[in-house]
Amino acid sequence: MIVVMKPGATTAEISAVIQRAEQMGCAVHPIYGESRTVVALVGDLTGVTREVFDAMPGVSQTMRIQEPYKLASRTARPDNTIIELEGGVRIGGPEIIVMAGPCSVENRDQIIEIAKAVKAAGGKVLRGGAFKPRTSPYDFQGLGEKGLQYLAEAREITGLPIITEVMTVEAVPMVAEYSDILQIGARNMQNYGLLQAVGKVTRPVMLKRGISGMIKELLMCAEYIVSGGNAKVMLCERGIRTYETATRNTFDLNAIPVLKETSHLPVIADPSHGTGLRELVPAMSRAAVAAGADALIIEVHPDPDKAMSDGRQSLTLEEFATLMGSLRRVAAAVDRFIDDAPTGEPAQAVKMAELIAA
Amino acid sequence: MIVVMKPGATTAEISAVIQRAEQMGCAVHPIYGESRTVVALVGDLTGVTREVFDAMPGVSQTMRIQEPYKLASRTARPDNTIIELEGGVRIGGPEIIVMAGPCSVENRDQIIEIAKAVKAAGGKVLRGGAFKPRTSPYDFQGLGEKGLQYLAEAREITGLPIITEVMTVEAVPMVAEYSDILQIGARNMQNYGLLQAVGKVTRPVMLKRGISGMIKELLMCAEYIVSGGNAKVMLCERGIRTYETATRNTFDLNAIPVLKETSHLPVIADPSHGTGLRELVPAMSRAAVAAGADALIIEVHPDPDKAMSDGRQSLTLEEFATLMGSLRRVAAAVDRFIDDAPTGEPAQAVKMAELIAA
Amino acid sequence: MIVVMKPGATTAEISAVIQRAEQMGCAVHPIYGESRTVVALVGDLTGVTREVFDAMPGVSQTMRIQEPYKLASRTARPDNTIIELEGGVRIGGPEIIVMAGPCSVENRDQIIEIAKAVKAAGGKVLRGGAFKPRTSPYDFQGLGEKGLQYLAEAREITGLPIITEVMTVEAVPMVAEYSDILQIGARNMQNYGLLQAVGKVTRPVMLKRGISGMIKELLMCAEYIVSGGNAKVMLCERGIRTYETATRNTFDLNAIPVLKETSHLPVIADPSHGTGLRELVPAMSRAAVAAGADALIIEVHPDPDKAMSDGRQSLTLEEFATLMGSLRRVAAAVDRFIDDAPTGEPAQAVKMAELIAA
Amino acid sequence: MIVVMKPGATTAEISAVIQRAEQMGCAVHPIYGESRTVVALVGDLTGVTREVFDAMPGVSQTMRIQEPYKLASRTARPDNTIIELEGGVRIGGPEIIVMAGPCSVENRDQIIEIAKAVKAAGGKVLRGGAFKPRTSPYDFQGLGEKGLQYLAEAREITGLPIITEVMTVEAVPMVAEYSDILQIGARNMQNYGLLQAVGKVTRPVMLKRGISGMIKELLMCAEYIVSGGNAKVMLCERGIRTYETATRNTFDLNAIPVLKETSHLPVIADPSHGTGLRELVPAMSRAAVAAGADALIIEVHPDPDKAMSDGRQSLTLEEFATLMGSLRRVAAAVDRFIDDAPTGEPAQAVKMAELIAA
Repeated sequence: MIVVMKPGATTAEISAVIQRAEQMGCAVHPIYGESRTVVALVGDLTGVTREVFDAMPGVSQTMRIQEPYKLASRTARPDNTIIELEGGVRIGGPEIIVMAGPCSVENRDQIIEIAKAVKAAGGKVLRGGAFKPRTSPYDFQGLGEKGLQYLAEAREITGLPIITEVMTVEAVPMVAEYSDILQIGARNMQNYGLLQAVGKVTRPVMLKRGISGMIKELLMCAEYIVSGGNAKVMLCERGIRTYETATRNTFDLNAIPVLKETSHLPVIADPSHGTGLRELVPAMSRAAVAAGADALIIEVHPDPDKAMSDGRQSLTLEEFATLMGSLRRVAAAVDRFIDDAPTGEPAQAVKMAELIAA
Repeated sequence: MIVVMKPGATTAEISAVIQRAEQMGCAVHPIYGESRTVVALVGDLTGVTREVFDAMPGVSQTMRIQEPYKLASRTARPDNTIIELEGGVRIGGPEIIVMAGPCSVENRDQIIEIAKAVKAAGGKVLRGGAFKPRTSPYDFQGLGEKGLQYLAEAREITGLPIITEVMTVEAVPMVAEYSDILQIGARNMQNYGLLQAVGKVTRPVMLKRGISGMIKELLMCAEYIVSGGNAKVMLCERGIRTYETATRNTFDLNAIPVLKETSHLPVIADPSHGTGLRELVPAMSRAAVAAGADALIIEVHPDPDKAMSDGRQSLTLEEFATLMGSLRRVAAAVDRFIDDAPTGEPAQAVKMAELIAA
Repeated sequence: MIVVMKPGATTAEISAVIQRAEQMGCAVHPIYGESRTVVALVGDLTGVTREVFDAMPGVSQTMRIQEPYKLASRTARPDNTIIELEGGVRIGGPEIIVMAGPCSVENRDQIIEIAKAVKAAGGKVLRGGAFKPRTSPYDFQGLGEKGLQYLAEAREITGLPIITEVMTVEAVPMVAEYSDILQIGARNMQNYGLLQAVGKVTRPVMLKRGISGMIKELLMCAEYIVSGGNAKVMLCERGIRTYETATRNTFDLNAIPVLKETSHLPVIADPSHGTGLRELVPAMSRAAVAAGADALIIEVHPDPDKAMSDGRQSLTLEEFATLMGSLRRVAAAVDRFIDDAPTGEPAQAVKMAELIAA
Repeated sequence: MIVVMKPGATTAEISAVIQRAEQMGCAVHPIYGESRTVVALVGDLTGVTREVFDAMPGVSQTMRIQEPYKLASRTARPDNTIIELEGGVRIGGPEIIVMAGPCSVENRDQIIEIAKAVKAAGGKVLRGGAFKPRTSPYDFQGLGEKGLQYLAEAREITGLPIITEVMTVEAVPMVAEYSDILQIGARNMQNYGLLQAVGKVTRPVMLKRGISGMIKELLMCAEYIVSGGNAKVMLCERGIRTYETATRNTFDLNAIPVLKETSHLPVIADPSHGTGLRELVPAMSRAAVAAGADALIIEVHPDPDKAMSDGRQSLTLEEFATLMGSLRRVAAAVDRFIDDAPTGEPAQAVKMAELIAA
């Protein structure tokens, strides 16, 4: 860490900084300039926060040199983490995994119909919300455990593993029992109690970046989970809040190569929440694959204009199947791949009705 | 609500919108323009979300006319809500209440020393964190229940009611037992499970605006608490995240008159977190009073450069006493008041050492 | 336009709005709800600003339905605009054009060396700054007309058309004489005098989005140029300012499909300024192609760590040639193309030294 | 400056940084840590940009210690700059100066009526736009030189000095001849050609912060003017662009104490543009005075709902006179003052009609 003193800092103030640093076990290198003194601290500073020095008299500014996250960092582990789900789906390797499903599980038939269509088009994981964080207390809040049961039934029928959101500490055991991946939503990125709770289970966790989360904060939140004992963490970019209103959020694709460079954890892109607009999802899905995402998570619905939530950003099942075809081509162009549809030939939008009816 | 159709929307698409609205019990007024049709919906739309119509084919955009929050809105209750604590402190009336204390309760002596100094300077509520949300899992996380006990002891000695943060649903009963006001922190503004939990207790709640919370979202979160049964909610502006880095956050004083206009709930300003910089706290505290805040919450510490957290933004006890004097003058200039220090004469910085020693 | 009255608006206030709208030639449709009145205006509202009604007593809010830009909008012209430069380069068609060159023209040899390398790798336009907007008055401000002459010489040698920035009204004739495309930089997006000046020349213009420009503002600024008489405008996304500091700017790729949908003008992506970090440029260039960009503009330098400006975001000539190869593959995956290098075979990084020496 | 090397930086890379710094005349202090090397540069670094080192191989990050602005900085000149206008108005001293007037000069009678009312209420400078930067090319663009003549006539009648915006280099001589203060608008904060032009005149300049201007950028832009030869620069906070839409801009009052601490130049607050909403102007004007502003600039109009621009944020003349009374009280509470109205007694709203008629 670097501690920069103010121009008129006194000798006593400088000495206090040096002494404090030495107490913390750092090697200290003061540099006396014409108008200012700079104190460089060397050693293991993981537990040393900048605010300790920020608050001392005579200090102008501080700069951290080492990342404060250790376990999540690429420095700690140069190789990519690959997370394998039951059934063999592997996230973080050369195959790009597509997760898809509705915003909310609405009823049994809906989720089973969608699961079949997702599988037919080549999707490998089924998403669906049973507990929904809603801006208004008067909105639909999800089916709860009933929704989890429908998801499990859809998995049994299709073989697709499932991902679903967990919102409270109390619900962690129940959601972990039903699902293959626990999702921590954007509003809960810094809900530290919840992060600690999912750090104690064995299920993989997908952690969404908060709507105003900095990339380094996302990594610190991942560190909460990994340091708690659960190393199977995936990082999800899902759009940030900026001044621009043409899109619901600003889907920050830059985060993908930044995260791949600074961390070994798999990176997932959510173009549905990222943009909030169905018509932008295909282009931004392709862009996410080109930018290096390890997986995508996409909202689909058989009849988006009747969806109970997020219809505005959901693709129809036909649009999704068509998109899968174009994603395969982009994946190949960046030396990765997306599996063909399970029938052995690319799913075609025109066949979807039959497949779903099956 | 107003639903604007796209230029080429078909008659079928327009009819579908009209039919859907009528099913929801709205009176519908379509307006057929040269290039577009606009459908105006009239009636009780509290339970109708924009997204229902946003997702329908042929719809270009929608605009909500009524606020989606009812109970928190000034329309619902034209008079200011005044929240009275045990012991008689009233928040939301002509008196401006100053809450102060350390970021974290560090030990018994620290909190008692500070409580005496806060009282001596004219503060009316003691703040202090026992459960701390920390960015890093390796940082000090607070003293937990021990901290609550120290706070309660400080209240017994000084008579000051206490405010402290609750971070998890499980901790609500315990924190509600010890404290006079429950604080919901910025990171938890949209932790809906927690909002529902504090909606069921009788303690007043101070709800902090999230670091990227929109004002209307803050009001929707207050609505969660009020609609859950607890009407004693205070709204707290504590700085938002913007591109500017000269301050730790951008303390958004505009929120104060906006909230006073749109809601009847008391509005509290937190210049310490708002700016993150001790040297800005006095000017911005005065500005908050001039802008119409009903209360301030300020971080103080006897030795900020040794504070375990947030020292950079904490005032010394002497600085706090001096600030109180200047706040009284600004309060008077906007026809409000801050009580004199309890000795019957304005607290003076020079007397602080004696007062604390007492 | 929709004008929403406040709940208690008086009959006189409503009548005033209706009367004002009728004076402006609009057909007026008032809708009287239980608690509010809404006034819908129908007709040609291009010259009618929202602020006229926003300021009237009793008005709560207004919403514009038609875009305020006409000439730049996709509604006005459904087909893509294709801009053809002298020499036959066409921007906006199926071929994706790559523009490249240094941030600043530093000297004659530098720009000629770079121009040869850009051409050898398959670039079609040479960029280079002769007039540089610099944050500090003490920084290098560019070579001025001398720089333009070097650019013109590089064009003569390689045949590549050139794009360069114009910063002041007075410089427009000079820059228009030397260059093939006039660049309006991000800081000047809303320099209306400059927009009017380039609206009067016949050279194509590339208009960069301001660092906090909204997409609709960018389109209004394009409207300034087009309505002034110059229809050859290209829109450039180059990163916006957000709270995130991991990248220099937040390169907003969402703007690409949004602009393609709302406007017929060609859309160009600048991953160099967009991210500010050399190591992110390849991934984000590929993502921009996948998202639908018509052209890219990329900073290159033979020795970035000795560049007089923007070295941090410049690719080496070898890195650029390698990137071109991967861009061709992504372009093909989205049914577009990037020409092979002029030698008839893909440029290879290993050959670059020879090509440059030639 | 501090240059932090990457963990694996080679000896050659470290040497290159040291050599480059020494060539620039810096004293160099390398610090060799366990995993990283840090190079501290000491000496006069005004002309040394971070980007030189940012671009070098092996460099991880850099941190500037000295501010890059010299002349505008409080370090360079500890005492407040006071700018005296012809006629004796002094900005930057204990008196808080209120500037007021319409957004646009609309006609002769309008500006003269307003000038009389501003003076009657105690305003000391008359504002009014003759050249208007407008988002749409189809909007009213101001009266041009005619507007300047009307302003000059209003000055002759009332004795109030005038402030008006200059948008182009060519217009600088003309605007400088008519006006007492040249205003650089927010959109032109980084229009460096214009900054250089006003650096060469003797008229005082009020420089507005750009809508996404960082505080340090505003100071660098002031440095352009001061280093060009014109030391009479005032800095104006007028609201920044954030994600919040409840206000038109986020009026950033924090900038006031930050600028007062870092610079000796006078600081002016513009609550009209800052908030964009008339009903917030009184509270935020009081807050700006409490925060330490040296002057306010406020939009007023005799009939805001008929104003040709910005009516939504303009006070009526009566509202302005009432506000002046409350501002005097807040000014006194922070040991400053605002002159009484010229009649020797506080202007009263009820008298305004007579005063204007006079």
